[in-house]
Amino acid sequence: MTTRKRILVSEVGPRDGLQSISAVMPIEAKKAWIAAEAAAGVREIEVGSFVPATLLPQLADTGDLVRFARGIAGLTVAALVPNLRGARSAVEAGAHKITLPLSASETHSLRNLHRTHAQVLSEARAIRALLDALPPERRPHFEGSVSTAFGCAIEGPIPDARIVRLAEGFLAAGCDEIGLADTAGYANPESVRRLIRLVRSAIGKDALNGIHLHNTRGLGLANALAALEEDITTFDSSLGGLGGCPFAPGASGNVVTEDLCFMLTAMGVDTGIDLDALLEVRKILAAALPHEPLYGFVAEAGLPRGGPTAVEEPARPALQ
Amino acid sequence: MTTRKRILVSEVGPRDGLQSISAVMPIEAKKAWIAAEAAAGVREIEVGSFVPATLLPQLADTGDLVRFARGIAGLTVAALVPNLRGARSAVEAGAHKITLPLSASETHSLRNLHRTHAQVLSEARAIRALLDALPPERRPHFEGSVSTAFGCAIEGPIPDARIVRLAEGFLAAGCDEIGLADTAGYANPESVRRLIRLVRSAIGKDALNGIHLHNTRGLGLANALAALEEDITTFDSSLGGLGGCPFAPGASGNVVTEDLCFMLTAMGVDTGIDLDALLEVRKILAAALPHEPLYGFVAEAGLPRGGPTAVEEPARPALQ
Repeated sequence: MTTRKRILVSEVGPRDGLQSISAVMPIEAKKAWIAAEAAAGVREIEVGSFVPATLLPQLADTGDLVRFARGIAGLTVAALVPNLRGARSAVEAGAHKITLPLSASETHSLRNLHRTHAQVLSEARAIRALLDALPPERRPHFEGSVSTAFGCAIEGPIPDARIVRLAEGFLAAGCDEIGLADTAGYANPESVRRLIRLVRSAIGKDALNGIHLHNTRGLGLANALAALEEDITTFDSSLGGLGGCPFAPGASGNVVTEDLCFMLTAMGVDTGIDLDALLEVRKILAAALPHEPLYGFVAEAGLPRGGPTAVEEPARPALQ
Repeated sequence: MTTRKRILVSEVGPRDGLQSISAVMPIEAKKAWIAAEAAAGVREIEVGSFVPATLLPQLADTGDLVRFARGIAGLTVAALVPNLRGARSAVEAGAHKITLPLSASETHSLRNLHRTHAQVLSEARAIRALLDALPPERRPHFEGSVSTAFGCAIEGPIPDARIVRLAEGFLAAGCDEIGLADTAGYANPESVRRLIRLVRSAIGKDALNGIHLHNTRGLGLANALAALEEDITTFDSSLGGLGGCPFAPGASGNVVTEDLCFMLTAMGVDTGIDLDALLEVRKILAAALPHEPLYGFVAEAGLPRGGPTAVEEPARPALQ
């Protein structure tokens, strides 16, 4: 059974959510969002991406956000880096964790990042060299994330063997751990289980801890359940499903943080997150991005009467 | 693993969907809906409920629908019956399966059905006597469904022991099998597993095959996955999530048939249902109920490139 495990919910909304919408959230609102989620018990937040501001003006303040978020006690401050240059900026700002994505679909990799697999792995080696030259207290944790791991909107299904090869390549290049990302919403519980087992059988259980799921086809939480049962311990999600409209064609649709946390809490899994406080954070997003829809079933339906936690025999008078 | 199992998806939209909306669907549209879903491979449809037309005018044509649906080869025609009188009407019309609901929340049972648990179990015994007096070829399969089994919006959590007692009571009263229903969207994957195991340990594995899940708090498919892994073989769902708005407070929100079938198909579970044909049936609902929203992630996002089925090593040139 899966009860009483400690699970890390990693909020990626300030990066994956905001990069998917055209509106630019003011930095003060971003700071309020990050601080409020941390106060609600979220222990890891991906605050942005070190990409050129010309490409993603929404994330141009990532360095400032890293510096701000480092001031929040107990919070792991994560950032996406597309290459060595991004990693340098992340190190300068003081990120605790950096994630380098590598799209398993090479077509997607070439179109979106203008890099082959070999080129991305070469960047990974250069980043490792950068990190190794740092004193340990300034050295961020280095994750290699295999994106479109479960399928790609351009290529369709991706052969399992390629995912294994890329995970091995990331480790060989010096990543501390590997993550799997269902960028296009192609995963299902069976493929989640299969790929986790396969990759771990190649690179070892401890080298794969994280999964990044989208809810494009409604399977986000079912896939998260499958990953949980495979002992995945880090789950990416986005508050309010920001940036991904589950009811619009082609939308990305990160798993909604509130719904994920509700499921875990109801199952008796320890996330350390206060659901009521988490739901309150939506107000910051709603105020700062009044034209962006926010999603989430729990926010609409409310928590169950009696609280989210499954209670076997509540101490109250039985009716019969 | 769960691959290659044969699973029965039982469409309950013509009953649970239509009873939740005020619009009355013309009988010709209902017939077209039932026929089209059966043609898409759906093998069981709950076509209505034998309740007084004064209470649910939307379902006043249930008898005619049972008679119509009996003409569709291979289709199991199911109907809800609230009591002995409803069961008599169902038998007269020729239903293959009847379901008698019993709300585990007695407060809910009294408010909605005006009956105590003891009174519902008494109806069950009377229905058994009615069925036993019939020749076998006219005798419908008799399911007792424990509703609000995972919690109730009035009472909150329901003690597990009460669910077990009611399931035993149903069997003792003469039901052929028991179903569990998450009427209020209170279930989570852990409580789904726990309650299935507990009830089966009391009444035997073969006496519990079906589950009726709602998606009120977004956990519908995750709960279905948990039930699938506990070897539940019959899953209720509603086309287009009809009658339940997942983004409106208090909405019921049956699991969406298309999304459930997509998940099962993608996992390699055999449902016998053609997804493309199933998605087409939405057009009948949209035309007949132009003011009712239809839900479903797969209908919005489309099927994945390459089809829903997880493919391990597709026979095509690898890019690297």
